[in-house]
Amino acid sequence: MLARVQATLARQPFMATLGVTLERVAAGEVELRLACAASLTQHTGALHAGAITALVDSACAAAATTLAEADRDIVSVEFKVNLLAPAVGDYVKSIGRVVRAGRTLTVCSGEVWAVTGQNAVLVAVMQATMIAIPASHE
Amino acid sequence: MLARVQATLARQPFMATLGVTLERVAAGEVELRLACAASLTQHTGALHAGAITALVDSACAAAATTLAEADRDIVSVEFKVNLLAPAVGDYVKSIGRVVRAGRTLTVCSGEVWAVTGQNAVLVAVMQATMIAIPASHE
Amino acid sequence: MLARVQATLARQPFMATLGVTLERVAAGEVELRLACAASLTQHTGALHAGAITALVDSACAAAATTLAEADRDIVSVEFKVNLLAPAVGDYVKSIGRVVRAGRTLTVCSGEVWAVTGQNAVLVAVMQATMIAIPASHE
Amino acid sequence: MLARVQATLARQPFMATLGVTLERVAAGEVELRLACAASLTQHTGALHAGAITALVDSACAAAATTLAEADRDIVSVEFKVNLLAPAVGDYVKSIGRVVRAGRTLTVCSGEVWAVTGQNAVLVAVMQATMIAIPASHE
Repeated sequence: MLARVQATLARQPFMATLGVTLERVAAGEVELRLACAASLTQHTGALHAGAITALVDSACAAAATTLAEADRDIVSVEFKVNLLAPAVGDYVKSIGRVVRAGRTLTVCSGEVWAVTGQNAVLVAVMQATMIAIPASHE
Repeated sequence: MLARVQATLARQPFMATLGVTLERVAAGEVELRLACAASLTQHTGALHAGAITALVDSACAAAATTLAEADRDIVSVEFKVNLLAPAVGDYVKSIGRVVRAGRTLTVCSGEVWAVTGQNAVLVAVMQATMIAIPASHE
Repeated sequence: MLARVQATLARQPFMATLGVTLERVAAGEVELRLACAASLTQHTGALHAGAITALVDSACAAAATTLAEADRDIVSVEFKVNLLAPAVGDYVKSIGRVVRAGRTLTVCSGEVWAVTGQNAVLVAVMQATMIAIPASHE
Repeated sequence: MLARVQATLARQPFMATLGVTLERVAAGEVELRLACAASLTQHTGALHAGAITALVDSACAAAATTLAEADRDIVSVEFKVNLLAPAVGDYVKSIGRVVRAGRTLTVCSGEVWAVTGQNAVLVAVMQATMIAIPASHE
């Protein structure tokens, strides 16, 4: 399961472009991390909503991947993000969780926390729908 | 209005990181463009949903900015994105439009089109809520 | 197509409970109407968001039904609604439109207008995902 | 707090039209209940998505009301609902919770469970944004 999530993330160049790292994998739950690099910020100095969304969408998709059949890839159908507070800190971590897994559609929820030292602030939440499609890799 | 949107985008390092360019500004409507660079893709070879979201969120925020009072910045409260087709092509363009402008909250809709030669395919739609906050810049 | 949409609405007791009527059917687009009855209001005197959602969700599902294969029913996977202004007036009308029709999933957008005499105000917008399932009727 | 939520629901005729009852109130969390009456169903025999949305939207708004200043009413800005399974059973219960309370905007999450005897199935989840406005009542 860990190897599968690692492989899925490794095949996504945008994850390396952003600097997303894999922290934890369990059945139906994955945690990713992203440093608050200046290159990822918006005009207020906080992480851009697009970078936050890329992180939490990937955490949700990875969570769905842990429960998907072996010959399937997970892609996002749609998601909704609420931005709760500016994402400033040392790094942000995102936890994606499967709310309901189906054979075709899987619904996930995700959180993004901004971490500064020992302090963590919830900065975004996602509700997402994922779909399992035939795996594209060779 | 054009200068204001240009300035807002220029102050967002993530826009340069992705390579987003400003194509068109009108009252309540902005068009942005993003090349389909390999560095922005997911495992299926299409643009990552996070890159698409960053683009269309920025187009919607810029559209809201065109109608905002001069001493205000626009930031995203929340958005919802439907991904309709793989974002593959020469580039994607996104059009953000104000659906209803309020003094505090502005609702926008956005589209993302993948363009290959003369052909354009609708690949994502967004419905978003923006908020006007006191401007942060000096 | 008209007969199919009429039949689908007629099989839904909640449509009669609310008092929803069918105004117009075209390929991929349906218009429904609902009187602003006191029994459907919230504490501000406007139509309750739940009644508005029931209306626009039904308009979107009906729009998807016009393009669905004959042996399929359309049900909602998910939707997102923005409430733009209080829904007060003589009646509200809702237009559901197909944005992208797929064999399994169909994405729709919907509008709700509050009408008073000759005046119409946009009071809500929806972005929705519908799914085609095997028809349940005998 | 209980009295305030009771009063808010009592002022909403649509709650009585549907038959929604208040089960539990705590700071930032409210539980509502709705019987699975035939008058509230769709063509598949399950509760209509609009009735489910009315219930969970009201639970979220009530949860936000428990934390709102005394001279404020809570109304919905927007919400997104995922429908996970058919809402069939003796009744459905919905729990609305405040995720983040702000002076103006409050973000909530909601669940809807279909209950049959001792068995409860999660049938819908909501992510919602509420706004506090000056109280409208006399």
